[in-house]
Amino acid sequence: MDDSDLRFETLNTQVALSTRLFDVCEVQRRGPQGVDSTFITLRTPDWANVIAVLPNEAGQPCFLMVRQYRHGSERLVWEFPGGMVETGEDPGLAALRELEEETGWRAETSRLLGSSNSNPAFLTNHVSTYLAEDLHFTGHHHLDQNEFVRVGLRPIEEVQSQMGQGEYDHGIMMMALWWWEHRRPDKV
Amino acid sequence: MDDSDLRFETLNTQVALSTRLFDVCEVQRRGPQGVDSTFITLRTPDWANVIAVLPNEAGQPCFLMVRQYRHGSERLVWEFPGGMVETGEDPGLAALRELEEETGWRAETSRLLGSSNSNPAFLTNHVSTYLAEDLHFTGHHHLDQNEFVRVGLRPIEEVQSQMGQGEYDHGIMMMALWWWEHRRPDKV
Repeated sequence: MDDSDLRFETLNTQVALSTRLFDVCEVQRRGPQGVDSTFITLRTPDWANVIAVLPNEAGQPCFLMVRQYRHGSERLVWEFPGGMVETGEDPGLAALRELEEETGWRAETSRLLGSSNSNPAFLTNHVSTYLAEDLHFTGHHHLDQNEFVRVGLRPIEEVQSQMGQGEYDHGIMMMALWWWEHRRPDKV
Repeated sequence: MDDSDLRFETLNTQVALSTRLFDVCEVQRRGPQGVDSTFITLRTPDWANVIAVLPNEAGQPCFLMVRQYRHGSERLVWEFPGGMVETGEDPGLAALRELEEETGWRAETSRLLGSSNSNPAFLTNHVSTYLAEDLHFTGHHHLDQNEFVRVGLRPIEEVQSQMGQGEYDHGIMMMALWWWEHRRPDKV
């Protein structure tokens, strides 16, 4: 398919604001009909999150999750563990590092379920979702300054029925759950 | 559950940069242990998208989608129609407006499948996904300046198998598809 009627060409990129989380860029582009305009993008480091499945005391299959305050929504939500991938770091190792730092659980291996751009309309980065395998508890928590989390086992059935709203109002976790629902190795 | 060990309190909010798409805010907050810090948030208008199901010429069930260049990923992707909700506009009406403007198809009614924050770590807004009902073609396209789209019917089976990667590398569409998979009224 010839997409020349849809494509833009980049002419120039300038950073309008640099923050700890991202750079706001003003990108000058030429449109498919030759008109030049400026577009706003956020240049962001990659993110990684990790799904770990463990039984609770009643033997129910659960996701290992963390509850934390989120500064965009100003609410507490349950999330799969995760965070930013550091420069040069393998996203799979970043996911396992975050898992252990936030929950005290270590996975010997991880399996990539999927990776996608959370909003290509203006974000440049990808978020990768891993499945943690061979889990054991080390207790090696290590939270960043300003990171306060509660660890919990949330029944898979509850997470699937409540995802996207209330205490699960989190699009990145919807994406992670979608990958797990479609791509986990033992999917029936 | 007492969450006082997790909650932050807002002290002050300042706009660091204002753009067409969002305001970048520096928010001063007091953490659960009394330490004050500054956090970055993006104050964004709400978004809405809409899922319309139509058969193609071969009678296969398809999603009505639009292909367009995305300035964050610098790639062409297939998306469900959608866009920003204007100030004071009902998100359901915004979704139907975008549907007709981008595709020329009009839906008499829409049904909310779900609404969530796409990334509460730093975004303030919600994206709502609607199902379009009672569709008919009007041909009333109306694209914004800098909006160039190709309309297409994409087989549901293809979208579900390729979502999140390649020409479907779009987290907001993963969220929309998740809502459709879990909440559509005729779900078996």
